[in-house]
Amino acid sequence: MLSEVEQFNLLNRFTSFVLINTSHPGNIGASARAIKNMGFNNLTLLNPKDFPNDIATYRAKAAIDVVNSARVAQSLDEVIQDCNFIVGTSARNRKIPWPLKEPKEATKEIIDRVINKKQKVAILFGREDRGLTNEELGRCNLHIHIPTSEEYSSLNLSQAVQIISYELRLAIKEVISNDPKQEWDVPIATDQEIELLLNHIDDLMLELDFYDPKNPRKLLERVRRLFKRTDLDTMESSILRGVIASIQEKLKN
Amino acid sequence: MLSEVEQFNLLNRFTSFVLINTSHPGNIGASARAIKNMGFNNLTLLNPKDFPNDIATYRAKAAIDVVNSARVAQSLDEVIQDCNFIVGTSARNRKIPWPLKEPKEATKEIIDRVINKKQKVAILFGREDRGLTNEELGRCNLHIHIPTSEEYSSLNLSQAVQIISYELRLAIKEVISNDPKQEWDVPIATDQEIELLLNHIDDLMLELDFYDPKNPRKLLERVRRLFKRTDLDTMESSILRGVIASIQEKLKN
Repeated sequence: MLSEVEQFNLLNRFTSFVLINTSHPGNIGASARAIKNMGFNNLTLLNPKDFPNDIATYRAKAAIDVVNSARVAQSLDEVIQDCNFIVGTSARNRKIPWPLKEPKEATKEIIDRVINKKQKVAILFGREDRGLTNEELGRCNLHIHIPTSEEYSSLNLSQAVQIISYELRLAIKEVISNDPKQEWDVPIATDQEIELLLNHIDDLMLELDFYDPKNPRKLLERVRRLFKRTDLDTMESSILRGVIASIQEKLKN
Repeated sequence: MLSEVEQFNLLNRFTSFVLINTSHPGNIGASARAIKNMGFNNLTLLNPKDFPNDIATYRAKAAIDVVNSARVAQSLDEVIQDCNFIVGTSARNRKIPWPLKEPKEATKEIIDRVINKKQKVAILFGREDRGLTNEELGRCNLHIHIPTSEEYSSLNLSQAVQIISYELRLAIKEVISNDPKQEWDVPIATDQEIELLLNHIDDLMLELDFYDPKNPRKLLERVRRLFKRTDLDTMESSILRGVIASIQEKLKN
């Protein structure tokens, strides 16, 4: 049984705050400060537009260590391929609804996954002007919607980071470690394994002429949503890929 | 009984966000945006050091109306004399402990006082470097402590405003009732549909000689567990069955 401090350290180590394509370096510094205020330091910058930059350092104040140790990455794959649970902040207006929670519930789920199931989590924050792309949102297992006024719903990036990190800090206190623990027999699949599976399914459907590649409609997104919310374990993912490979082989003959 | 909108309007009208002696105009703009994002617009600036200022306007983005309509005051008396309940954000290190709540509980109390008791509330936010003075804290009925890391507890002013306004927005919903409804686009599949799907998968795997029917080991059980815990919707279940049917047809030829 881990102590509260050990649980928090585990949460911090296994939870990465990922800022995607940030335009304003001030928001990077303010976000670094926001997470450090809540006890976190695991910051990833995916293709920041203007970094390093003195404004980031200035706005970080005493969180300059978080800015300096931030991981800078070039591709989303690189950032999330070894993660088991990807969360993205969303404005909640997608055509095909995705699993969606408000911060309080979403952070409880993150805590449960990290502390009880030892999963690695990435929390994605989008661009200041346009948020996350549909493709990025499609890589997520869960979307978080921060409730806002309908009149003016666009939060500053660092404010969104502050709210999520604040809720994470609260949630770890609340999640009671003697929840009935569901021990799973097989580790949960990584993002990379799920993406390979989705590609494999797509290949198969093309070989079957199951859809017109020029007009896939919402089919692929529905299949993606299904396997993104399913928590496939590694064995299930291999079974499915084994079945598909076996189909492909038969189709060839 | 007031409608939800009427209750929110009442809360907004009766709750003033008061920034005391703010040094950086950027924090005024960011705070205006933070409260507007959560549906509020009642901002008071008590002796701001540098206001009006273009930086405040810039950081406010679409909350420029909140900045322009902010009440600028010269004395705390003038600001709070007609208020019934004064709340101040505090770092919680006073010699004489004051009534103190965390944001979630404090905002519930504010809602109760405004909505049920028609009280006027002021929420005081202190200086960037030194917070509220002891005298100002002594004018409060309740202190709010935002939980932070012990290592670095000093929140940016606008982040503190964001957290409190966010919690206020949540609290009124909670006091009023309805959960955020997650509308799914398609009805969830019935047990019957899932069983038909599982049979269909099993048929396919047999046709593929994917397993030895005399010795299926745990394969079928794993596939069953997967689709039983997934909450497939009816369209997803049809898509999967459509893919399988299309495979079976190709295999026949």
